Amino acid sequence: MANVLTPQADDFPRWYQDIIAKAELAENGPVRGTMVIRPYGWAIWERIQAGMDLRIKAAGAENAYFPLFIPESYMRREAEHVEGFSPELAVVTHAGGKELEEPIVVRPTSETVIGEFMAKWVQSYRDLPLLLNQWANVVRWELRPRLFLRTTEFLWQEGHTAHATRQDAHEYAVKILHGSYEDLMVKLLAIPVVVGRKTARERFPGAINTMTLEAMTRDGKALQMGTSHELGQNFARAFDISFSSAEGSRELAWTTSWGSTTRMVGGVIMVHGDDAGLRLPPALAPTQVVVLAVKAEAVEAARRIGDELRAAGVRVRVDDRTDAPFGRRAVDWELKGVPLRVEVGPRELAAGGAVLVRRLVGVKEPIRLDGLAAQVVAALEHEQRVIADSARAERDARIAEASTVAEAAEASATGWARIAWSAVGVDGEARLAAEGVSVRCLQRPDGSVPASDDEPDLIAFTARAY
Amino acid sequence: MANVLTPQADDFPRWYQDIIAKAELAENGPVRGTMVIRPYGWAIWERIQAGMDLRIKAAGAENAYFPLFIPESYMRREAEHVEGFSPELAVVTHAGGKELEEPIVVRPTSETVIGEFMAKWVQSYRDLPLLLNQWANVVRWELRPRLFLRTTEFLWQEGHTAHATRQDAHEYAVKILHGSYEDLMVKLLAIPVVVGRKTARERFPGAINTMTLEAMTRDGKALQMGTSHELGQNFARAFDISFSSAEGSRELAWTTSWGSTTRMVGGVIMVHGDDAGLRLPPALAPTQVVVLAVKAEAVEAARRIGDELRAAGVRVRVDDRTDAPFGRRAVDWELKGVPLRVEVGPRELAAGGAVLVRRLVGVKEPIRLDGLAAQVVAALEHEQRVIADSARAERDARIAEASTVAEAAEASATGWARIAWSAVGVDGEARLAAEGVSVRCLQRPDGSVPASDDEPDLIAFTARAY
Repeated sequence: MANVLTPQADDFPRWYQDIIAKAELAENGPVRGTMVIRPYGWAIWERIQAGMDLRIKAAGAENAYFPLFIPESYMRREAEHVEGFSPELAVVTHAGGKELEEPIVVRPTSETVIGEFMAKWVQSYRDLPLLLNQWANVVRWELRPRLFLRTTEFLWQEGHTAHATRQDAHEYAVKILHGSYEDLMVKLLAIPVVVGRKTARERFPGAINTMTLEAMTRDGKALQMGTSHELGQNFARAFDISFSSAEGSRELAWTTSWGSTTRMVGGVIMVHGDDAGLRLPPALAPTQVVVLAVKAEAVEAARRIGDELRAAGVRVRVDDRTDAPFGRRAVDWELKGVPLRVEVGPRELAAGGAVLVRRLVGVKEPIRLDGLAAQVVAALEHEQRVIADSARAERDARIAEASTVAEAAEASATGWARIAWSAVGVDGEARLAAEGVSVRCLQRPDGSVPASDDEPDLIAFTARAY
Repeated sequence: MANVLTPQADDFPRWYQDIIAKAELAENGPVRGTMVIRPYGWAIWERIQAGMDLRIKAAGAENAYFPLFIPESYMRREAEHVEGFSPELAVVTHAGGKELEEPIVVRPTSETVIGEFMAKWVQSYRDLPLLLNQWANVVRWELRPRLFLRTTEFLWQEGHTAHATRQDAHEYAVKILHGSYEDLMVKLLAIPVVVGRKTARERFPGAINTMTLEAMTRDGKALQMGTSHELGQNFARAFDISFSSAEGSRELAWTTSWGSTTRMVGGVIMVHGDDAGLRLPPALAPTQVVVLAVKAEAVEAARRIGDELRAAGVRVRVDDRTDAPFGRRAVDWELKGVPLRVEVGPRELAAGGAVLVRRLVGVKEPIRLDGLAAQVVAALEHEQRVIADSARAERDARIAEASTVAEAAEASATGWARIAWSAVGVDGEARLAAEGVSVRCLQRPDGSVPASDDEPDLIAFTARAY
């Protein structure tokens, strides 16, 4: 059979484009860099969003909503922030049929406007911590857009919190990093993210610490899946977010921000997909099982099986389009990455069985109709473990040990390198950057996230990145 | 006790502003007309959104996402559409540090961009109906903004569908109108909306039929809560949404669009609120029951009751802030419209009881701790019926029968008028408009929605509107 997709080994970016088109995930919008998310892509995002929303609420944050439009002057209040974002801003100059007196920025992120309101809402230490999150679209003008990964408009959640002490802010940023982000990425997305601290060079504009979760794509690059920032007192100072302490003194708050985006959909594609299409972890898949009626005579049985699976809590679809060729339908569900297929044909039915196809490894095996739901539920749990384990094994196999910057640069051509941060340093990082390689994050030897770049024995992960 | 809010009878719009501030629902954003939705306001919207999303999916539509930015040229393709929206548009002229070659419009609604993509996705009659929905923010420059009701940026869902026949499009627009919108507004929001057809004057720009759901606010005005439009072939023609029929001919599709917005939160406030604050229907309330510990000795018992209610599926909060005055806390929960309060004090506890306060009518009554959860669940169901019934009775009492345009205008000063459409007509409608009164919708005598303005015996509802 001819390839539906460009093989990954031939041209990974092209494979990525193909799969997004063929699995009907998304398309380019009419304004350069914007994206139309099609129903199947949206269903994946919707499940990521629901899982993340639960985890953010579990961390104690409350959802709110702040405006899309920000006065241009707000952006200028925090020096590093405006410098970081200026080249990416989209600016509204006309509205209501008139030229505006002050241009308006379409939010690239909401630190500034939320800072303004935090300053109103925070008066006393009793108002802290203030833990806010919003689900929103943001705009950053992209010169080299790529669907899901880097689009001019993208969807995300952005959390913004204010705390009485630096320690409390730090602990909350870490709580989101591990308890919300890492938990979702590992358990729901089955992506073995490497979690660490960004170097000063890679920090968010205005932050004193940026922590990150990095995925390895199947072409050996890195994809930043989410970040959690300590902003120190920089935004509190710029927006006067201050509070009276229990002792009656006036203190500046310590703030954090943290975000995760529609890019996670791109991560799922790039970490799990293969030459036959998408492969979705069962926990994430909008459709976990498709029941395919092979022929018209099997449609009724397929529907019964669908009902049985639905009753068992499985997200199931019945494909009864028996007027379309069976092979084409099977290929289509493979493209869409549905974890399990139950193929129901007259011959197997007569013998009290059907065929179970596992998308992950492509194996076909007989399945008994008797107790089918329990077998399918068990198979889904099994596939979730398999996809997570195989992504982890693949990642580990592609992280090379390096001891010099030159070795790290070489290893980063095909995978990641793991190297002592002391062997890189700020100078080595600049040399790597000149070759298109970046330090993705720093970790302690035990894999935990360092509290500063200056801790001894830190490990750096280097890679090319999307 | 001094009024926390301006009384409704003194100044309803002022009351509305007060309640939004005091119940911490929302604030004005820094750019004129924009809105910050605070966590409590957001929690209400989130529940409306979840209920609507379920109902839209039940109607068969799938969620997708289209870009915020629309090329200005798209807006001009449908003549009435551009005329209707031009004065309200916000325009991006600069982005990425440069002046754009073609200005970009921030979407005021997405008919045009979705039309463009429907044209790509619809090829054959087999692709129809195409049923799409999106949750998004839109921008319409507002000269007289009012929080939730009319803001420059608002949040909504907009549905867009394409059908093979006019009849099919009509039926789908009606299905959303009743099955999704009316069902949610009546059952979840407890708002007895009047459902009907807009006159030609009030139609959506580019539509051949606009159907509406109108709520009566407690100052006797009308608030449009949602609309469902048949767009005929106007957008299909402008964007070439065509398909090959089963017979092989090329046909233009028939499209619909329908939207409901954050304005519904304003509707809940204006239909149910009273001088003590918000009153939320239990089905909608983010917190259905607050358990108030009167004194520190009662905190432990209050928490146990909270756990018991939570286990019974009640959305409950325990107020254990016994260092704050009890009266102030009670007033605060009244302001926030929590349907039931369980007040737990040492004296009642000793007698195996507590006090149940019904926010709707302000009645206090003893409640036994033994079997408390079942009593509370029953009380919540009861309050849901009471709030719906009382809103309906109040609405009906304020709809006056009128037989002339002058009578309708007079009645519309304090409530709504019900008048034969034949006694108004296009001329009468213009005379009403000169007095700030509009025809909110047309109904058949049996309350159903007419298929045209020309049916005999139609009834018009007139009112001043928000």
